[in-house]
Amino acid sequence: MTSQIDDFEISPFRSSEDRAREKDQKREAVLRSAVRTFNLRGFQAASLDEVAANLRISKPTIYRYLGNKEQVLLECVTRGLEMLRTAATDAQAESGSGLNRLTRFLRRYAEINMDDFGRCVIRTDDTALSPDGRAHFRALKAQIDKAMRALIAQGVADGSIAPLDVKMAAFALAGALNWPAKWHDPAGGNSAEDIATSLVEVLVQGLAPRA
Amino acid sequence: MTSQIDDFEISPFRSSEDRAREKDQKREAVLRSAVRTFNLRGFQAASLDEVAANLRISKPTIYRYLGNKEQVLLECVTRGLEMLRTAATDAQAESGSGLNRLTRFLRRYAEINMDDFGRCVIRTDDTALSPDGRAHFRALKAQIDKAMRALIAQGVADGSIAPLDVKMAAFALAGALNWPAKWHDPAGGNSAEDIATSLVEVLVQGLAPRA
Repeated sequence: MTSQIDDFEISPFRSSEDRAREKDQKREAVLRSAVRTFNLRGFQAASLDEVAANLRISKPTIYRYLGNKEQVLLECVTRGLEMLRTAATDAQAESGSGLNRLTRFLRRYAEINMDDFGRCVIRTDDTALSPDGRAHFRALKAQIDKAMRALIAQGVADGSIAPLDVKMAAFALAGALNWPAKWHDPAGGNSAEDIATSLVEVLVQGLAPRA
Repeated sequence: MTSQIDDFEISPFRSSEDRAREKDQKREAVLRSAVRTFNLRGFQAASLDEVAANLRISKPTIYRYLGNKEQVLLECVTRGLEMLRTAATDAQAESGSGLNRLTRFLRRYAEINMDDFGRCVIRTDDTALSPDGRAHFRALKAQIDKAMRALIAQGVADGSIAPLDVKMAAFALAGALNWPAKWHDPAGGNSAEDIATSLVEVLVQGLAPRA
């Protein structure tokens, strides 16, 4: 340990960096508690009172960190959709065939959808949102759909994916990999990673046996 | 035309058969109006007042035909699940390979899920139901899952389906074919039949090209 850290550990005063980091950690804790409450109760039934009580804070503290209930939800789904977008960008940057890139994206896509923020994206019925919130949510979702279709089209173009209807393939893949957000129990027997791998394998290989 | 029909057409009095048929038609109209309202608004937000107003009847008339809101919903999802069960039984009775039987079932499964009652099965968040209602709903859904797994297993056994994890394959298929209940617009460009055929084709063939 350096003496600087020792100094910090015995000082009851925090630096501005410590305070900034602590603020980020608190904001993150509020977001994490909120997304779990939304996933458990659904947006309409979820209450920021419950989120606040779980963290032993007041509701105005939540407003200060993240805003009102819809703003908190939009923050949660934006986080989930950013994770999906990062997965698409990462997959695009990889080498290998279009099918290889798509396969990596699909596994991450499925895993994210079984995690808190991705689950919130899938479970959010956007009819509960304000018109502005709904438009924002749908625009972000459309980006993910576009990225998935681009990856499929690249695989068809390089011959690593069979010629198929790209739009329908994207619907089939998204449906199969969104659905675990409805049934996967994180506390259950199979890990999200194993489920993602198995589901993607079925989708890549298809049901019909290969010669 | 027979004279019996002529007699009926000019008589202002209805036979007991006519009355029974009319009662069935009215019950059916209430159920159809209710399922569309549930699909449009969601179970919690849906109101039997709206269903009644659409049919120019009173809410007690709905109670008389079908019961309270949860009983009406259970009637709707039971109808959808009966349609799915019939599709599974019909597929089982067909000749051909296991994959052929499964393919026929999957197409019907997808079509039903894009229609009013199937859509209601998919869209119903069963946490809104009473414990008894939820148990009834889940038991019916489990039968469909069991039937799908049986059809997959038969195909694997006769070699028409590749060796695979039957449970994971059922999850992938159900997810891909449940999802259209979320996005398919019956008034849109593609028919449910065409979408069902395309989605099932993607799932049967898989993404990877065949030699």
